[in-house]
Amino acid sequence: MNTQSISIDLPGRNYDIAIGTALFDNVLSYAQLPSAAHVLIVTNSTVAPLYAKRLEQALSVRYAAVHTVVLPDGEEYKTWQTLNLIFDALLKNGCDRKTLVFALGGGVVGDMAGFAAASYMRGVPFVQVPTTLLAQVDSSVGGKTGINHPLGKNMIGAFYQPLKVVCDLDTLKTLPARELSAGLAEVIKYGPIADLDFLQWIEENIDALLAREPLALAHAVRRSCEIKAWVVAQDERESGLRAILNFGHTFGHAIEAGLGYGEWLHGEAVGCGMVLAMALSHRLGLVDAAYVQRVTALIEKAGLPVLAPCLSTTDNPARYLELMQIDKKAQDGEIRFVVIDGAARAYVRAAPVALVREVIDACCLRL
Amino acid sequence: MNTQSISIDLPGRNYDIAIGTALFDNVLSYAQLPSAAHVLIVTNSTVAPLYAKRLEQALSVRYAAVHTVVLPDGEEYKTWQTLNLIFDALLKNGCDRKTLVFALGGGVVGDMAGFAAASYMRGVPFVQVPTTLLAQVDSSVGGKTGINHPLGKNMIGAFYQPLKVVCDLDTLKTLPARELSAGLAEVIKYGPIADLDFLQWIEENIDALLAREPLALAHAVRRSCEIKAWVVAQDERESGLRAILNFGHTFGHAIEAGLGYGEWLHGEAVGCGMVLAMALSHRLGLVDAAYVQRVTALIEKAGLPVLAPCLSTTDNPARYLELMQIDKKAQDGEIRFVVIDGAARAYVRAAPVALVREVIDACCLRL
Repeated sequence: MNTQSISIDLPGRNYDIAIGTALFDNVLSYAQLPSAAHVLIVTNSTVAPLYAKRLEQALSVRYAAVHTVVLPDGEEYKTWQTLNLIFDALLKNGCDRKTLVFALGGGVVGDMAGFAAASYMRGVPFVQVPTTLLAQVDSSVGGKTGINHPLGKNMIGAFYQPLKVVCDLDTLKTLPARELSAGLAEVIKYGPIADLDFLQWIEENIDALLAREPLALAHAVRRSCEIKAWVVAQDERESGLRAILNFGHTFGHAIEAGLGYGEWLHGEAVGCGMVLAMALSHRLGLVDAAYVQRVTALIEKAGLPVLAPCLSTTDNPARYLELMQIDKKAQDGEIRFVVIDGAARAYVRAAPVALVREVIDACCLRL
Repeated sequence: MNTQSISIDLPGRNYDIAIGTALFDNVLSYAQLPSAAHVLIVTNSTVAPLYAKRLEQALSVRYAAVHTVVLPDGEEYKTWQTLNLIFDALLKNGCDRKTLVFALGGGVVGDMAGFAAASYMRGVPFVQVPTTLLAQVDSSVGGKTGINHPLGKNMIGAFYQPLKVVCDLDTLKTLPARELSAGLAEVIKYGPIADLDFLQWIEENIDALLAREPLALAHAVRRSCEIKAWVVAQDERESGLRAILNFGHTFGHAIEAGLGYGEWLHGEAVGCGMVLAMALSHRLGLVDAAYVQRVTALIEKAGLPVLAPCLSTTDNPARYLELMQIDKKAQDGEIRFVVIDGAARAYVRAAPVALVREVIDACCLRL
């Protein structure tokens, strides 16, 4: 298939996302990058055996010293301790300000490699080679990087844009089914918040996507990145509009934190969180029940959980509310949710606590 | 005395530095800042007993919840572990994206509070209340924040600008003499690299400065900030000109790292590093011996060390060179120095290793 390219334009910076097959180990994918004595590939123990050697070989054509650091795999390792492994590798190998950092892996690798690149010597160039669907449709646009703190997810980080993103659809062939579904959660998200035609396209192509057909994947990645880029270009620092990209994430983050990071995948928590956010939108009178059922059915068909987990045996809604208090959208102690209407418009607003409790009660697994 | 104000203009951002007496606990100093539910004061165990309560009281007039976190004092605590105390305080107190972080203390407090503000939720507003001369003349302009890594000083950080800087000269009254001298190192620095009139003014007023006369201090702080602001405005990200502000720092960082952080104060290492950088400039034929002696005499009169410490009993210059390899100015393994000529112009350049070894041998304490 042909390689497609999307240009991301932000004030003072722009970069390209290449989408296609046979890209990540192709020397031409990196031909436009600046020269440097050293580059560092950041990857994890799952991705390294599959793809690290091939990326090293491609980069060796261009760069004299190609170093690789292999992180443990999993959201539970998105910590300062793991981040320090990257700094250690940069310093021990004598990497300087011109060193390029390549993120080869999923969202966790991208978030950590990006934050390391943003912080090492106060900023070195950064390139993303996302190998999961989630990372290709979500992390590759917008420049959010960071790590978790024991008291909250993604609480420490930076906005930092890559020089280039290379989305090789071939790398999705080795993706576990559960992770493919987690990526589809973020693809589906772009329908209700921005594009009903895309929502319908996903419904019609969900089987092709689950079968990893490259043409279907290419369209899903491309359209997701386009929508995200359109939103981010208007609001890079998330002062307003950009928050709509967090549809399903307020509830989702509570699920991740409440179960313990790593128990559910981020995309699974977001998928289930979208069901809760749809239900809240319905109770606020923004969408009808049929629309909630339609989107919920698609989330379920994508292989994602649609029943929220019980996070407390004493007062489950109270536990959800407690966990949502530290969401980054919260202001002055008030929890704010992304809700939608039936015309693909999203809003960020507070909601009555009683209503939120009802939604949680209605959507949770009763044990 | 009257309060003076300098405006720092950077692309897309500008802020004021207020310089004067009776400022830091004056409500009016903070009247223009944005509103927020919470603010966090970051200070250390030395400064807190002197000034924290008074700043808390001044901020309480404006902000409902004023929290304070007290860090251990010293460069050796400029680590991730200490930085985490700030994140812990932000999260435990429910601080949100609008929370202002105030740095009350010297350069170490400012660097860590600034990096925490840059990274918490990917960026919250930041205000500096520097209480050391070094922090007032150096850290308050330029937005450099960061922490040390065991393998290198200031290796992890961000460029992050404050909303405002309040330089209260009264806080210098309690400064230990050794720290006053350390601050004078950075004041003296601005002479050789940019302003011979200022160099002469410092020579004429060194006794008044050491006696902490407010008018002399005000001029020294003001002129230092003006020169630094002029340099930074032209090169915020240190791609070129800004590196001249590192005059004395390449040798200085080697001294700090070689002795162990905290053994010498940063300003002491910079003072001594300037002597080495002057000697190197002389050996490169840029300045005459009389000028080296003139600046060295001023550095000594300011109470700073002018003889470099021995960092290795086997091959001392080799140890210096090894430590300087990881300087952030190094490129492709080549160490780069800031050197000066006799007309207050500074340059960043490499130097022959043999020459650098000679300089180190000539300037080091022989035991």
